[in-house]
Parts: sequence; structure tokens; C-alpha cells
Amino acid sequence: MIAHSFKGELFGPAQRLHGATYVVDVELRRPELGPEGVVVDIGRATDALESILGELNFRNLDDDSAFAGKNTTTEFLAGVIFERVADRIKRGELGPGSNAVRELKVTLHESHVAWAAREGKLG
Amino acid sequence: MIAHSFKGELFGPAQRLHGATYVVDVELRRPELGPEGVVVDIGRATDALESILGELNFRNLDDDSAFAGKNTTTEFLAGVIFERVADRIKRGELGPGSNAVRELKVTLHESHVAWAAREGKLG
Amino acid sequence: MIAHSFKGELFGPAQRLHGATYVVDVELRRPELGPEGVVVDIGRATDALESILGELNFRNLDDDSAFAGKNTTTEFLAGVIFERVADRIKRGELGPGSNAVRELKVTLHESHVAWAAREGKLG
Amino acid sequence: MIAHSFKGELFGPAQRLHGATYVVDVELRRPELGPEGVVVDIGRATDALESILGELNFRNLDDDSAFAGKNTTTEFLAGVIFERVADRIKRGELGPGSNAVRELKVTLHESHVAWAAREGKLG
Amino acid sequence: MIAHSFKGELFGPAQRLHGATYVVDVELRRPELGPEGVVVDIGRATDALESILGELNFRNLDDDSAFAGKNTTTEFLAGVIFERVADRIKRGELGPGSNAVRELKVTLHESHVAWAAREGKLG
Amino acid sequence: MIAHSFKGELFGPAQRLHGATYVVDVELRRPELGPEGVVVDIGRATDALESILGELNFRNLDDDSAFAGKNTTTEFLAGVIFERVADRIKRGELGPGSNAVRELKVTLHESHVAWAAREGKLG
Repeated sequence: MIAHSFKGELFGPAQRLHGATYVVDVELRRPELGPEGVVVDIGRATDALESILGELNFRNLDDDSAFAGKNTTTEFLAGVIFERVADRIKRGELGPGSNAVRELKVTLHESHVAWAAREGKLG
Repeated sequence: MIAHSFKGELFGPAQRLHGATYVVDVELRRPELGPEGVVVDIGRATDALESILGELNFRNLDDDSAFAGKNTTTEFLAGVIFERVADRIKRGELGPGSNAVRELKVTLHESHVAWAAREGKLG
Repeated sequence: MIAHSFKGELFGPAQRLHGATYVVDVELRRPELGPEGVVVDIGRATDALESILGELNFRNLDDDSAFAGKNTTTEFLAGVIFERVADRIKRGELGPGSNAVRELKVTLHESHVAWAAREGKLG
Repeated sequence: MIAHSFKGELFGPAQRLHGATYVVDVELRRPELGPEGVVVDIGRATDALESILGELNFRNLDDDSAFAGKNTTTEFLAGVIFERVADRIKRGELGPGSNAVRELKVTLHESHVAWAAREGKLG
Repeated sequence: MIAHSFKGELFGPAQRLHGATYVVDVELRRPELGPEGVVVDIGRATDALESILGELNFRNLDDDSAFAGKNTTTEFLAGVIFERVADRIKRGELGPGSNAVRELKVTLHESHVAWAAREGKLG
Repeated sequence: MIAHSFKGELFGPAQRLHGATYVVDVELRRPELGPEGVVVDIGRATDALESILGELNFRNLDDDSAFAGKNTTTEFLAGVIFERVADRIKRGELGPGSNAVRELKVTLHESHVAWAAREGKLG
């Protein structure tokens, strides 16, 4: 649940300070399951996502220096969260299966009809 | 899509300026259908709701003098929209069936799991 | 999945022959549960509903003499199905608990945002 | 996410040990909002619900002596959770607004189409 | 909200004139975001989609000469809308980012459980 | 609606006998539509899926010898159903279009937020 404003005529009334609730889905893909029968430890994946979202939640993103000069659109934020989840996977934070994950998709739902996602391979 | 902040320790991090997307449902009840077979003209009901939401959308509600001294919680906003829809019904803005509507419910969905509603009879 | 057309300027382009998919929910209420711990036999309730919907599905409702002179709006059809379900409850078709059901609600979802319902007590 | 079995021919294959995921919604109603603008403290309400569900989750309900001789149907479990939430409200566990809550509804969603609820006044 | 009928024994009762509501999702993909931080202008994308759907909505598709000799199944209509959206993208109707879009997916939801999609690269 | 238990500390309380409801979606992909305008016969696809699910539904999967030594996680079960659907497609059970299907995706929804899928080409 964040506040922000956008720069550019393209955005019409969204140039004013407003806000949004994002519901965030993360999808992790690996070619084969490991011996436990799971992609990763869903408990650790959930903890990692909550930690990442905790850095953004209940804030005015216009005040976050990490986003200076950027429009924090849904598309942009999907990319930010993608990179932060990817970093944690590379550090092995999702447990033993972390290094088997090959692809990642992060979707931000703005409402029941609008969403944006960033999808890609892990380098 | 609004920005706001709350006053009171109860609200924890939501005391900071943040934001929310609300998906708004309006439910209108009447005892019997009229000759056309509809509760009201759904086109006019949609127009009325869009007009009411347009007064709130893409704004920082902390700056709206109508809400001075109030926490613009989901519950509170459901009540605000309830009153504004009720006024338009009383003025006959939803077409011929307007005066047959006896009950109204306004629901604000904050996310796919959290919502608040105001429900009541029309005076 | 029905075809129909509406009469009256109120309906704009819906005066032309068009169609709709309705997803139908039925809600049955009784004051106390019976010894089995269910409101009614959900298998028999589902069969009854499928039988009622089978009388309407894949048809042009403009050709159904039961609806002559009526607009088969979502509201109207919710009432039709309400009456047909109520009749089956009175005949005991939902099993031993049928006579304990006191209230019924039939909801027709036109899409993910629009729906109409008929709700009432059983006589 | 519970395991259980039912007794009675009515239940067909559900007489075998099987299981279910329930998504649980709780709705609290009060006539007027308090000064903070909320029905109750949603954080405390969520904690209370999680505590109640923690007593049931990841268990075989056939082994729970509290339910001996009962079919732990969706309807029955909605009633169990209703009573346990009502007890916590009476004890003031949802914060200052607890004693203003007049009605409660507990809904258990079995799937995207099937659900059961217990709804009632608080004594 | 369209009416239509299908030819072929495969379709059973759907050979009769009936109808359907389709909820249409369009997904646009580009490799990198542009300077504004959006894939395309969502306002212009929505206008384009509404214009395309306006050519089909509230009609009996059996009477549309563009579909003569074809079954206007959900799959087929997803392809029709895909081509019409693709044409508008090629003409630059979605704003400055239009020529960066590389892939398109059009999904038609028939109900909460059934859908069909056409997905492909833009030539 | 199945019962099962998992082996491994990773699973915490899910090592106890518990259960789950899975809502199962199957997605079939082919490069071009056939003359009827459908991917496959949806009636036959639904029958095939119901038959496959009937082998699993209302059972304790810990007792199924086909799964001996395996954790019947959501991911694992998605793979099991994928293989069983793929076998039926190869045998032509979904009608004339069966041999045109090139890709298959099977998704098991555990709840409104958690799901797992197996996606792949048909050999």
C-alpha cells in the first residue's frame, strides 16, 4: 500500500500524489523437482517476499532515493521486485532448491483487472 | 487510487503517508422489479458511481477538507460513498426506478482478502 | 449461455439480439443444522440446479413462451430460478433437510463485476 | 488444510478419509464506527483468527476429541469457528471496539464455487 | 455479450442459437521499458480494445459477414481480436511505445472456469 | 479433496496427516485451429480430466501404492496429472484434434493464493 506520483502528461490525473494497493505474486520455475518434491521451501520464499515488500509498504515512494528520477509505475515496480527476489535466490535464501531455479516471474496486481509483470531467466 | 495517512498508534506503519486502490461495489435492493425488469438503469447507476469516485480518485485524502480530523479508513470511505450514492438516489438520478430502492450496500475492496462495507436502509 | 433481446429504449444496444453467460450461485439457509451436519444434500441440490438450468441453457429466450412479453434481464432470470428452486425444495427434492430451509438466495453473475440476485423467505 | 471422514450414506465417497483446504473469511458488524474509524483493530482480529485456525490446521479432525460423534462438515466447522471468534470478542481480544460488535459471519470456502457460513447476532 | 450458433455435431446443444459474455484480457510484452516506465499508454490501449469490442458487442455473430462459414468459438474470436489489436499496434495507435511491443496475448474468459487465448509474436 | 502427509523437516506441521482441496486447470495448446474452430472437444477433455481426478479424489494418498516413497506435494501431483492427461491425448481420447496438441499445462490451485503447475511439450 504505497503513495506516489508520476511525471509526464501521459499520466493525466495520476501526476497528482495518489496511491495503490499491489497484490504481488511470485512464480519460480525449475526443470525438475528435487527429492523433497517442492520447487523451493515455500515458507522461506514467503519470508523473503515479505521482507522485500516490507521495504516498500506503507511508504511514499516519491521519497525513496532508490527511485529518484523514475516513475514508480506498476511495470517499474515489478522489475524492482524481480531484481530483489533474484538476488535472494542467488544468495541461496530460498533453501536447498534455490540454485535449481531457472526462471522467475513477478506480477503486481493493481486491481482485479489491471496488472503488470516482469518475467525472465536467472543469469 | 488514493493516498492518505492515519492518526493513532493503532495504525502502526499506516500512520505514514501511503496509498490504496479500492475496488467499489454498489448493491441496490428493491422489493419488486418494475415493468422493464431491472432494479435501476445500470448505465445511470454506473455514471453516478463514476462521478462520485471521480471526486476521490488520484488524490491525497489528507488534503480534502471534507475529511478534516477524520481517518479516511476503508470503513469510513464506505460510509462516505454510501451517503453520496444515497443522495443521488433520492434526487432520482438512477432513472424511473430510483424511488423504489429501499436498501443500499457499498463495499470497498482493499485487496483480494480485505474489504469493508456500509449497508443500510434508505430513509 | 443464452441468447435474448430486450424491449425498451432504456436498453440501448441490448435491444439487439445478443447473449450472455450466467454463473449461478444458490444459497440455502436454515436456523440449525440437522444430525448429518449439512444444510441439505449438496449432491441433490446440484442435480436440481443443473436440471433447472438445463431448461434454459443454449437457448434463445426470446422463443420461450414462458417469458412472453417479459424482458429476460439478469434480475428477472434470478427471480425465475428462485421460484423453480423454491418449488423443488417444497417438494422435498433436496433430501431430508429440505423442509428445514427457511431462506433462499439465487445470484446470477453476468461477468466478474456485474450480478443480480433474488433473495427471500420460503413461504 | 485438514483431513477428515464423514459418517452416513449421504456422503458417498466422502465417507473415506480425505481432506480439504478452507479459506476462512470473518465479517464483523457494528451499528456505528468508533472514533478511530475502524470496526475493530484488524491486526488483533487477524491474530485471533490465526490462533483459532492454528488449533485446526494440518490435522486429522477425526482424531480431535472436541468433535467426537460429529461430522466435521464445512457447515459444522463454520459454526465451530463462529463460536470461538464470538468468545474472543466477548473477552475483548479485538481491542476497544470489541464490545460494539453486534453481528458476526464466518464463511469457509471449500473451493472457488462451494462455501458454507454461520451468521448470527452476538448474545 | 454476443449471440451465435455453431455448426457440427461436436457442439451438441450449442448448435442452437445461444449466447455468451466474454471478459477480454489483453497482454502486451516488450523487452525493456521506455523512459516513462510503462509498456504502452494504458488509456490508449483501453480505448483501442473498447473500439474493437464495440464492433462485436450486443450482436448476433451469425449475421456478421466477416465470419461467414466460420464457427465463432471462443478460440476463433480470440484470434479475431488478436489480429485487430495487432493491426492497431502496427499503426502506432497505442502511443510512442507501440513499436516496441513484441508479443501479444488475447484471452477470452467465457466464465470463471473456461477461457481460450491466442498468443504470438508481432510480425 | 485428498488427505496426505509429508516426510521431511522442511514440511513442519504438514508432516502430520492433513488434507487439501485442489482446483485443477488444464491448458492445451496447438499452433493452428482445426476446421471446427476448437482446440479439442471440450466435452471430451472435461470427461478425461474428471476420470483422472476420480482416481485421486476423496482418498488418503499415503495409501496409494503409485506414490510410495514420494511426497504428494502440489508440484508432484501437477506432474502426475500432466502425465495422465498426456497419455490420454496420445491415445486420441480428446477427439480429432488430439494429435495437433503440442503443449500442455496442468495447474493445481491449493487456495486463492497458492498454486503449482507442470508445463511442457508433448513428446
